[in-house]
Amino acid sequence: MRTKIAIIGSGPAGLLLGQLLTNAGIDNVIVERASKEHVLSRIRAGVLEEGMAGLLDEAGAGDRMRAEGLPHEGIDLAFDNRRHRVDLFGLTGGKRVIVYGQTEVTRDLMDKRAATGGVSIYQAANVLPHDFNRDRPYLTFEKDGREMRIDCDFIAGCDGYHGIARKSVPEDAIETFERIYPFGWLGIIADVPPVNHELIYANHERGFALCSMRSTTRSRYYVQVEADERVEDWPDQRFWDELRRRLPQGTAEAVIAGPSLEKSIAPLRSFVAEPMRFGRLFLAGDAAHIVPPTGAKGLNLAASDVRYLFDGIREYYLEKSTAGIDDYSQKALSRVWKAERFSWWMTNTMHRFPEQGPFGQKIQHAELDYLFHSQAALTVLAENYVGLPY
Amino acid sequence: MRTKIAIIGSGPAGLLLGQLLTNAGIDNVIVERASKEHVLSRIRAGVLEEGMAGLLDEAGAGDRMRAEGLPHEGIDLAFDNRRHRVDLFGLTGGKRVIVYGQTEVTRDLMDKRAATGGVSIYQAANVLPHDFNRDRPYLTFEKDGREMRIDCDFIAGCDGYHGIARKSVPEDAIETFERIYPFGWLGIIADVPPVNHELIYANHERGFALCSMRSTTRSRYYVQVEADERVEDWPDQRFWDELRRRLPQGTAEAVIAGPSLEKSIAPLRSFVAEPMRFGRLFLAGDAAHIVPPTGAKGLNLAASDVRYLFDGIREYYLEKSTAGIDDYSQKALSRVWKAERFSWWMTNTMHRFPEQGPFGQKIQHAELDYLFHSQAALTVLAENYVGLPY
Repeated sequence: MRTKIAIIGSGPAGLLLGQLLTNAGIDNVIVERASKEHVLSRIRAGVLEEGMAGLLDEAGAGDRMRAEGLPHEGIDLAFDNRRHRVDLFGLTGGKRVIVYGQTEVTRDLMDKRAATGGVSIYQAANVLPHDFNRDRPYLTFEKDGREMRIDCDFIAGCDGYHGIARKSVPEDAIETFERIYPFGWLGIIADVPPVNHELIYANHERGFALCSMRSTTRSRYYVQVEADERVEDWPDQRFWDELRRRLPQGTAEAVIAGPSLEKSIAPLRSFVAEPMRFGRLFLAGDAAHIVPPTGAKGLNLAASDVRYLFDGIREYYLEKSTAGIDDYSQKALSRVWKAERFSWWMTNTMHRFPEQGPFGQKIQHAELDYLFHSQAALTVLAENYVGLPY
Repeated sequence: MRTKIAIIGSGPAGLLLGQLLTNAGIDNVIVERASKEHVLSRIRAGVLEEGMAGLLDEAGAGDRMRAEGLPHEGIDLAFDNRRHRVDLFGLTGGKRVIVYGQTEVTRDLMDKRAATGGVSIYQAANVLPHDFNRDRPYLTFEKDGREMRIDCDFIAGCDGYHGIARKSVPEDAIETFERIYPFGWLGIIADVPPVNHELIYANHERGFALCSMRSTTRSRYYVQVEADERVEDWPDQRFWDELRRRLPQGTAEAVIAGPSLEKSIAPLRSFVAEPMRFGRLFLAGDAAHIVPPTGAKGLNLAASDVRYLFDGIREYYLEKSTAGIDDYSQKALSRVWKAERFSWWMTNTMHRFPEQGPFGQKIQHAELDYLFHSQAALTVLAENYVGLPY
């Protein structure tokens, strides 16, 4: 088989890139290790920046997001037993975020791909990129017990943190940077109305809590837990009790509890691999970088990678220029590091750290106190939360 | 002897408070452990916020500062071998800082005090505050071998970090918060023209450097050194070589070296004691809090404490209200913690930390990179550097 762009991974990054390429008439194939159903069963983030939403529109897969997604114009930060609203819309000259589950984004992109005849190969075992440092790269994998090979011009590694793309790069060609946070997020989903029409990020002496949502009838709640906590030790009632303890008076009582549809503990990690291009292999999204979920940046960073990468590839084919793909790594990483900084800052500011000590806690409180006394500091938070420009 | 306000310490905080009180007709006495000459020999900071400058004017001791001080409308941050200017004036709607040595401030206040007949007792040994938790506090000390006692309404502890005022408070009545940074600043003064008309804060892989000044003909330079470094190991030539290594190309070559008039290593520390009032004893300035010098906030925080304390005392005597002194600790600490936060941030952002690791260094670089891509982030820096409102 031969194509122009072989894409490893059928998550939002790979699907979005594939769709933009397809729409531009650039031949591509997506190869995915898991089944379509498995990909759609993964539960992930759900706050889209306008840039990401615009890319979905551009891909022709934005209709349902525009119809069903919830535009949010603010978030609340809670501390000292009070909620403080951050007017994202007012502080950024009219920008919003859209609450719309990553799973839905993936589904919409899969549907669009099917409708436009894009080729996706699911349940491909032992995917391996080859010869990306030469002129004729190719992918090999096994499908239904048969050896397959796709020859291509470029390979896009959109296969996440655990994927093969980054791992295929020789160790001496890649540098990685990492911070593992000493706690996790215990999250649940429940079919109850969210306690607030916007998200609430709560800093509390017992630890961080987040009130989020998937829709007006489906809530997503999180509490910070120790890294080695086990989900079996958290029956629903314990979760709801702990959540309420960490919310301000008035808000805590308003939380409507209900049976959990899903309950899991996620670790928090900051990770960046540099560079993001290795000859004819490009990394995009989680394959190259992970952020802790605090700033809701993971999916949105994948989108900005795809923006730069698609523009570069289009330039290559349509304008016969390598400028875009030559700049890809540097351009993407510059934005990645700013989002890493923001996610790190928001994680540091909102969580309780075992090692922070009394001085660190006071500084954290001063940070929050200053924030709500400074238009400039609130603007910094807001412009990062809605997403820095591409 | 009897007075209304007994002030411990004849540094800028004590002198400024004393002068404002004297001008308002409120009787006060300053008691200082050291000699006048010793106090004037201490070399300290030299960047005044407008609030501090206004207080000096209000005290009637601002004339020389206005004539000889250097108004600065910006600072430079250097990294990646380039200088980036922060337009303090433009970002803050027209605010400046004034470069004028703390020693000069002290001298001007001493001269003013002498001219207006204020009483200062120097070389007072074993100063001790008494009964400040009752109605009739008093100070005892020894002067020229004689036991002395000053009865008063209130005691102001303006005697610095090592002073007796804070140490007289029972341990269970005070809470302290501290961060000691794992490095020091090696600083020199030399009678050479400064390399730039504004300050340059340099982030470099060899460590932080600062190009500051006392006047257009006297430079003040610093380099970050390890905490246990010895000044004897730093002959002038080594200092100049190291300074130049940490400055961007173009700037390094422009540094004019000269024999050092003074050379010393200062530790960096963040420290806050809470509360700042204990019955009839008030702490102000370094007696209650220390900041690392990076943000030039130490002297300016002493000034804002004095602003709040003087207003409270004046209200007490002239309006028969305790509201101002009752609010003093909370009001002062709210501003103190914001300045602590800023000084901590600027220290973290500009220095090399042994423990920060590759991820921490990248985040630091992202912080600087983001700063010069965001008007809001630059405004946060600028509004803090020129001083938050009182």
